[in-house]
Amino acid sequence: MANNSQEMSQLVPAGVLETPLQESTGIWFIYPAIAYPHNTDYGGVVWHGSYIAWMEEARVECLKSIGVEFADLVAMGCDLPVVELAIRYHQAVRMGMKVIVKARMAGIVGVRINWDYQILSADGQELFVTARVTLVAVDREKGKIMRQLPTTIKEALGKLVEG
Amino acid sequence: MANNSQEMSQLVPAGVLETPLQESTGIWFIYPAIAYPHNTDYGGVVWHGSYIAWMEEARVECLKSIGVEFADLVAMGCDLPVVELAIRYHQAVRMGMKVIVKARMAGIVGVRINWDYQILSADGQELFVTARVTLVAVDREKGKIMRQLPTTIKEALGKLVEG
Amino acid sequence: MANNSQEMSQLVPAGVLETPLQESTGIWFIYPAIAYPHNTDYGGVVWHGSYIAWMEEARVECLKSIGVEFADLVAMGCDLPVVELAIRYHQAVRMGMKVIVKARMAGIVGVRINWDYQILSADGQELFVTARVTLVAVDREKGKIMRQLPTTIKEALGKLVEG
Amino acid sequence: MANNSQEMSQLVPAGVLETPLQESTGIWFIYPAIAYPHNTDYGGVVWHGSYIAWMEEARVECLKSIGVEFADLVAMGCDLPVVELAIRYHQAVRMGMKVIVKARMAGIVGVRINWDYQILSADGQELFVTARVTLVAVDREKGKIMRQLPTTIKEALGKLVEG
Repeated sequence: MANNSQEMSQLVPAGVLETPLQESTGIWFIYPAIAYPHNTDYGGVVWHGSYIAWMEEARVECLKSIGVEFADLVAMGCDLPVVELAIRYHQAVRMGMKVIVKARMAGIVGVRINWDYQILSADGQELFVTARVTLVAVDREKGKIMRQLPTTIKEALGKLVEG
Repeated sequence: MANNSQEMSQLVPAGVLETPLQESTGIWFIYPAIAYPHNTDYGGVVWHGSYIAWMEEARVECLKSIGVEFADLVAMGCDLPVVELAIRYHQAVRMGMKVIVKARMAGIVGVRINWDYQILSADGQELFVTARVTLVAVDREKGKIMRQLPTTIKEALGKLVEG
Repeated sequence: MANNSQEMSQLVPAGVLETPLQESTGIWFIYPAIAYPHNTDYGGVVWHGSYIAWMEEARVECLKSIGVEFADLVAMGCDLPVVELAIRYHQAVRMGMKVIVKARMAGIVGVRINWDYQILSADGQELFVTARVTLVAVDREKGKIMRQLPTTIKEALGKLVEG
Repeated sequence: MANNSQEMSQLVPAGVLETPLQESTGIWFIYPAIAYPHNTDYGGVVWHGSYIAWMEEARVECLKSIGVEFADLVAMGCDLPVVELAIRYHQAVRMGMKVIVKARMAGIVGVRINWDYQILSADGQELFVTARVTLVAVDREKGKIMRQLPTTIKEALGKLVEG
């Protein structure tokens, strides 16, 4: 068990929450969401997998806000699949609650694009979820990871980083 | 950017995949799954959030195999919500593919139960997903994390650890 | 076989569509939706089951617009489960498309509440889906269909019917 | 309003249920399913849209049983989207329950393939859901409904009709 708990500390995305957020240079994009019946499970709260859909919606809307229409990107042959995802659930969102999903482009490393997330109550007082998602640019035709991000995307993403 | 990439290395669940799995003492539970149309997205592959459902199914069946019926547990007032989840997507599962979801109880730390996952092709040759999920025991009536795991669960989970 | 067909005639939701629709005098409630990647399937279009979620969202928002908060209703012991649902898919909504979900309370028959739906392109020119959904009021504690709609709901629903 | 009701009568899937069911001579295909947490909603029962996924799974497995691999069909350019769907919910399936999804090819009308469904308790004593689903054969490249069913499909489907 001791062994296992040590192992744990290496494995779980321990830093996701404690990251000193003030150092991050991205701008938070705000996306509102509501917990509808289809999002809930037997507990009357949002099922843990449903947050993944909200996070995707926030990401698509954030990209749209800087002129990148995700469906067009895909049509042009560039996909941005999720390759890593780490979530910490602090508190469950209850049915009927209105929340805000905060998404922030946290950095580009080669063709990998990192996003940070926070899901909060509408008044910002309750923290429900923190997460990090990593996307990678893929050439749909070749079915391979791109060598570099398409220029248009890279330039657009630049708008998400503060001066 | 340099800053961000450094930050990354702390945040992402880097160890999930590289864990020296031979050291783990748990037994892998095997759960078969098939990629149906409703699991897919525009890419013709399983949508990244769908794997979460498969992992939950595998966990529920693994518990059933040691005599713990999840629905009964909930009816008796004990819930086991997911509090942390980290996934790495190595390759996408394509529509129609049959896969095996391997789930293993990786350790208990207080009231936290850790699970490791691997999703592989039916022949075991292709690795699609690796993940770690942490559950916590919650008293449904009080709405609070339990001080310790119910004895019945703890004893049952003991069966998942090799002699 | 004769047996089977008889059985069928009792089982299938035979009445769903013959309702004399001309009596309907409700006002269309407009709910916007966007086809996100998680809504799509291998065809690059919205998976046929995803529309059910949109229709539920529209219904919950329509009720909210007349002062009925669905989560509160449930908390007070009244549920409104779907007992019948019929959909016709005219055209598929493609990824990235913005649509409007039109929902209209089409009539109350005892404790049954009928809703009509149309899902259209944002400009109203393309019709994607038409549907009818029937809800029934259930006493959550007794687990039984109510003898009559709670007065507050009935009065609120009255606001959805034109003068 | 008169206008609206007229419009409705054209739009709603009016024919779905009047089909002369006595002609149906198909064999029931049995598909087992279990109500996992992700299938449930706040009521502790399967969310009404989740049954659509089970029905799709049953259909795909039924086709597989007669040698038609759905993913291959799609890869060869033939899609079978759902164009009509009608469901009646008799009773809700509770979390943890094991059910059987009975699917039966109910007839072919041109390029339309009708399916009947029943979802029952594992012992066959409780009836939860009855439904009818209509598929249509679509040429994926042209994006149009086919003039006739591909011979291979038609012949395979013949196996689902009793002698």
